Amino acid sequence: MTELELLKRIERRLPDSDTGGIVIGLGDDCAAIRTQSGEDLLYTTDLFVEGTHFERESLPARWAGRKALTRGLSDIAAMGGEPRFCLISLALPDWAGSRWVDSFYAGLAELAQQTRTAVVGGDLTKGNQLVCDIVVCGAVPRGQAMRRNGARPGDGIYVSGHLGGAALGRRTQSGAAGRCHTRPEARLRLGKYLRKRGEVTAAMDLSDGLSLDLFRLCEASGVSAVVDRPLPVFHGATIEDALHGGEDYELLFTAHRDSRVRRSFERVPLTRIGTVTSVSPPGVMFFGRNLKPGGWDPFRSNTDKCD
Amino acid sequence: MTELELLKRIERRLPDSDTGGIVIGLGDDCAAIRTQSGEDLLYTTDLFVEGTHFERESLPARWAGRKALTRGLSDIAAMGGEPRFCLISLALPDWAGSRWVDSFYAGLAELAQQTRTAVVGGDLTKGNQLVCDIVVCGAVPRGQAMRRNGARPGDGIYVSGHLGGAALGRRTQSGAAGRCHTRPEARLRLGKYLRKRGEVTAAMDLSDGLSLDLFRLCEASGVSAVVDRPLPVFHGATIEDALHGGEDYELLFTAHRDSRVRRSFERVPLTRIGTVTSVSPPGVMFFGRNLKPGGWDPFRSNTDKCD
Repeated sequence: MTELELLKRIERRLPDSDTGGIVIGLGDDCAAIRTQSGEDLLYTTDLFVEGTHFERESLPARWAGRKALTRGLSDIAAMGGEPRFCLISLALPDWAGSRWVDSFYAGLAELAQQTRTAVVGGDLTKGNQLVCDIVVCGAVPRGQAMRRNGARPGDGIYVSGHLGGAALGRRTQSGAAGRCHTRPEARLRLGKYLRKRGEVTAAMDLSDGLSLDLFRLCEASGVSAVVDRPLPVFHGATIEDALHGGEDYELLFTAHRDSRVRRSFERVPLTRIGTVTSVSPPGVMFFGRNLKPGGWDPFRSNTDKCD
Repeated sequence: MTELELLKRIERRLPDSDTGGIVIGLGDDCAAIRTQSGEDLLYTTDLFVEGTHFERESLPARWAGRKALTRGLSDIAAMGGEPRFCLISLALPDWAGSRWVDSFYAGLAELAQQTRTAVVGGDLTKGNQLVCDIVVCGAVPRGQAMRRNGARPGDGIYVSGHLGGAALGRRTQSGAAGRCHTRPEARLRLGKYLRKRGEVTAAMDLSDGLSLDLFRLCEASGVSAVVDRPLPVFHGATIEDALHGGEDYELLFTAHRDSRVRRSFERVPLTRIGTVTSVSPPGVMFFGRNLKPGGWDPFRSNTDKCD
C-alpha cells in the first residue's frame, strides 16, 4: 500500500469536519481555521524519524533541530503564510543524551528566532528510536491561502530553486549539496510574495520529490501535467535526484497562462517546467512518457518510477 | 536526569515567547494564544509510544486510537476548555498493517465525534516502533483558563474520581480497572464546570501520578502541599498505585478555603485530600512523610518514592 492509498482509507474513516471555522481540512499542506480577526490560521504537523528521515551519524543534532522546524515552516510557506508558533514533541532513545538534546533545541531555537516562530509547548518521552513531531501554526489573510486544488488546464507549472540537491547531498555528505541535505531552507518569503501577487492557482512544497508531489497537486486539482521543459537540476545531481529525490523544500506552483511570473525572486530562480492539461485520470507526462508518482514514499520501496 | 530537569534545561535554550498573543507558554497543560474574538485558544501535544506508554499485545488498536486522543483532551479538560480540533501523526512499524490502522482511526474518530473534535490534519510515516503524536486545540473564554500556578497557602487540594485504577488495570487487564487502563475518560464536562464556578485556584490533569503531578503543581505555584486525608483509592488498587501509578486522567485542583466544593459532579466524586502550605522549597508531605515526586517519569526508573 502507498501513502496516498493509506491516506484515502483514513479519510473515509474520519467524521466530516463540519465544525465551525474549518476552511481547509485533510489533504493540503496545512489545515486552515477561520478566525474572527480577518485571518485564517494554518496548522501543519510533520514527523521526523531516525532511520526513516535522517541518520544520526550524518545529521548533527543542531541541524536535526533546525531541519525538523524547517519541514513544518515549508508547509506554511507553501500556502503563503507567516509562521506564528510551534509545538515540538520528542521521543528520545538512550543514545540521545542531554548534550544531543541541548544541541537539537539550540538549532531549533535559532531558526525559530530567525523566523519569529515562538515555541509554545511540546512533549518529551522515551522511545527506542528518535522521533520528532512538530506542529507549526501560521497565518494568512482570510481566504488567501494558496492551495493544491486550484490548477486549471492551460496554467503554467513552475518550481523554485534547483531540484535534486538534497538527494545528491544525502549521498555525498559534502559541499553545497550537503548543505541542501542538512540545512534546507523553507521558502517563506517566496511563498508570501506569490500569495500577494495573486497569480498562483495552486501551490505546495516539494518535500517528497517532484514526481510524487506534482501527481498529488494534479489529483487535488483534478487535472494532469505535461512536463516538457528542462528541469532546474542542482549542479551535479541526476535527473532521477531531481524527479524523485525529495527534501528539496522548494515550492511547486501553477499560474494562469497570462501571468508574468518573474524569472527569479531574491536570487532564487523560478522556472517554468510545463503545462497543466485536462487529461483524465490525473497523471504526469514527462517528455512524452508517463511518469509514475515515484517520489519518496515511506510505505513502499522506490523502484519502477517510469513506465 | 528526570523529565523535570530536562524540561528546565530546554526552556533555558528557547527564545522568550514574546510574540503577540501568547498568554501561556511552556510549562502548563496547554499553551494559550489570545484571539480577537474573546477566546483564548489552547494547544497541547502528547506522545503515545509503543513500549513506553502502551503494549500492542494488551491495547487493541481501537482503544489505542481512543486513548491517544483522550490524553490530549484531558489536558484541555484540565484548563477548563472545550476541544475544537486535532492533528494526529503516526509513525507505523511493519506490524501495524492496514487493519490495525483502520481500527486505530475508528477508535479515534468515535471519540472525536462524541467530543465534537474535528480531525483536521496529520502525518504518516514509517518507524520501527509505533509512535503517535496528537495535538489538540481547544478554547476557553478570554483569560479564564485554569492554570497550575495559582495555588495559595490555605487552599484545599482536591481530586476527581478514584486513583490507581489505571495502574491496577495495567496489571490485571480485566474488569473495571482494565477499562480504566484501556478506555480512560477525559474530564471535559467537569473541567468546564470547575472553570465556570470560578473557585478553582489551580488545576491540572493526573496523567503521571499524584505524587509527581502534585509536585509539579506546587512548583508552578511556589507552594507546598500537605496530603493528610484518605485518598479515593480505586477498589482493589494499592496506595502506591494511587500515588504513583499515572494515567488516571482525573483532575487535580485547588480551591480557596472558603469555597464550597461539591462532593461529586455527575456521579464523579470530588474528594478533598489536603491543604496547600507556604513551606519552601516546594514539596509534598504525605501523612507526615516527605513524598518524593515518584510518579511516572519515562526518563528514570521509578524507585525510592518515599523518604
